Amino acid sequence: MIRFKSIGYWTEAEGVESDVVISSRVRVARNLANFVFPHRASEAQLMEVCDFISKALRKNDELKDLDLILLEELLPQERDMLVEKHLISPVFDEGEKGRAVILSEKRSNLCVMINEEDHLRIHAFSLGFQLKNAWKIANEADDILSSHLPYAFSKRWGYLTECPTNIGTAMRASIMMHLPALTINDEIELLFSNLSDSGITIRGLFGEGTDIAGNFYQISNQVTLGKSESEIISNLETVSKSIIKKERSARQLLLKEEKIKLLDEISRSWGILTHAKLISFEEAIDYLSMLRLGIDLKILPHLSRKKMTKLMMSIRSAHLRDLVGEDFNEDSEAEDKVRAELIKRELFKLREGGGINV
Amino acid sequence: MIRFKSIGYWTEAEGVESDVVISSRVRVARNLANFVFPHRASEAQLMEVCDFISKALRKNDELKDLDLILLEELLPQERDMLVEKHLISPVFDEGEKGRAVILSEKRSNLCVMINEEDHLRIHAFSLGFQLKNAWKIANEADDILSSHLPYAFSKRWGYLTECPTNIGTAMRASIMMHLPALTINDEIELLFSNLSDSGITIRGLFGEGTDIAGNFYQISNQVTLGKSESEIISNLETVSKSIIKKERSARQLLLKEEKIKLLDEISRSWGILTHAKLISFEEAIDYLSMLRLGIDLKILPHLSRKKMTKLMMSIRSAHLRDLVGEDFNEDSEAEDKVRAELIKRELFKLREGGGINV
Repeated sequence: MIRFKSIGYWTEAEGVESDVVISSRVRVARNLANFVFPHRASEAQLMEVCDFISKALRKNDELKDLDLILLEELLPQERDMLVEKHLISPVFDEGEKGRAVILSEKRSNLCVMINEEDHLRIHAFSLGFQLKNAWKIANEADDILSSHLPYAFSKRWGYLTECPTNIGTAMRASIMMHLPALTINDEIELLFSNLSDSGITIRGLFGEGTDIAGNFYQISNQVTLGKSESEIISNLETVSKSIIKKERSARQLLLKEEKIKLLDEISRSWGILTHAKLISFEEAIDYLSMLRLGIDLKILPHLSRKKMTKLMMSIRSAHLRDLVGEDFNEDSEAEDKVRAELIKRELFKLREGGGINV
Repeated sequence: MIRFKSIGYWTEAEGVESDVVISSRVRVARNLANFVFPHRASEAQLMEVCDFISKALRKNDELKDLDLILLEELLPQERDMLVEKHLISPVFDEGEKGRAVILSEKRSNLCVMINEEDHLRIHAFSLGFQLKNAWKIANEADDILSSHLPYAFSKRWGYLTECPTNIGTAMRASIMMHLPALTINDEIELLFSNLSDSGITIRGLFGEGTDIAGNFYQISNQVTLGKSESEIISNLETVSKSIIKKERSARQLLLKEEKIKLLDEISRSWGILTHAKLISFEEAIDYLSMLRLGIDLKILPHLSRKKMTKLMMSIRSAHLRDLVGEDFNEDSEAEDKVRAELIKRELFKLREGGGINV
């Protein structure tokens, strides 16, 4: 049985500016005073950190809705799903001893990693373009945790972190965006290099060093020191607004000047997704990205964007396994077959009684 | 108005072994005694050759069904169609002065190029695996022409030709084959190199130096000297039979061991061809090749192979222009759009009342 299914289900609702923005995320790194940083700690010392935090959670009423679960107590399947939901990092999932997560049925937009790079990584998110809301959730969790846990904090440097690039606010705010038009018209490269000059980084769907899949990009702040949290958020908001505007203009321009090519790509994507007998996640997400663009541009008015987003999430490996109740035992052909069948079935359902008139 | 439409319509019937062999072709090169070879001739000398042959055709009852037409008298569209039917070479079509073709409404499987590399290139073909029949047609034409035209012939060297690699029989026999399974399972490379050792060459659909499109290959003899015509034909027949056998085994093996991948490719091809809004000839022929394989393997029993072959021919540029009565004026997007529409329409017609159950 998969627990905490509702956690991190970023596909439940739509959110603000959802034609471009998928979700807004904030994470803060915190470390406990008087404990060595995780990468220098022995397994026993890591366990001490887990125990210390666990006791604090149990002792205080204010924290009692937060459950600390050791990573080794989670099923591999549950951990895979947390990774696919971007709530724990793939690297965190690799070593299980002395690592834990804090999850809460009540706070489904929150996840805390214990003993990843830092003792605590508080991670909150919100659907659509709602950075302030994500920050509120993270901040609230941070406030109640900090009143019961002694944080390593320096008046001069702010929150102390394992990696010097994180000290200060120790905050990273990020926006997940769908930028197909800026990708198609090749503006994205220039945008990347301009943003990097202003302390903003762009990465693919699955974080650092991953390929750009399905034209999804994570835009986040690079600098954590010398700026307040609200400055960081406000800066990222400004940049994001300008990207949203650029993407929307690029979409309209495509529709105006390259309409037939756009219709061709969108219609082919539908044709492939409804006819493939085998399909990998990476390939499917690229075609689904085109359908999503078709929905946003009202070329596919019969499809629902919300359900499309949900479909995109459900075809990732662990989610797919959970959905069909089947373990593919590393048999990627079996997985690709089930994925292709699911997509075909869901797309016909999504079409909700209208032909694909592209 | 396009004349000689019926000429070279290799898609009218099916022929023998048509699951693998599309057509069989024979061409012989002949030169007139006492005229310089075309590449050394002036325009006036080329015209003299045309006049000389033209007079012979008009003077003799036996030759009167053969029409000599100067290339410059043909519409560009008509010439393009002859090129697409593989009846004249693209290089022949480039310079028009002093060049001509002999066509005949009665002999629709025959075409003679005047002043290409040699004074006469007699070209005959037959549908399916029927080399002997193609040879019969070419031979008959050669016989009646030779009784009225003085050929350059040496007792020692045989027919004299512009290029030394053609002397002797001056004959090239070739078989056009569809070899998707040998291409998919990568056996084709080895086959190529083995064949080349035994004096057989393999080229793509459009002759020397062209890409392999749609898994169509031309298999032909390389050596023209030291063997009789019937030896050349018999040798090519033997080799072809062995390739047909290999291709059929490879198809059965694919069906047995890679069925899902095969179904995936065939079904996707259908999905793309019925959803594309723009498609080039090269791309379309690759997907149509997969549908053809689906027909051959009875995966697509509702489609007709004969009509599929006709569709493949009709989507080439000049044929498409002729079919829709539209000149695209080098606008490849307009052409790709019309091609996509035609394919979609024809495929739905071809399906003839049965779902695509792959």
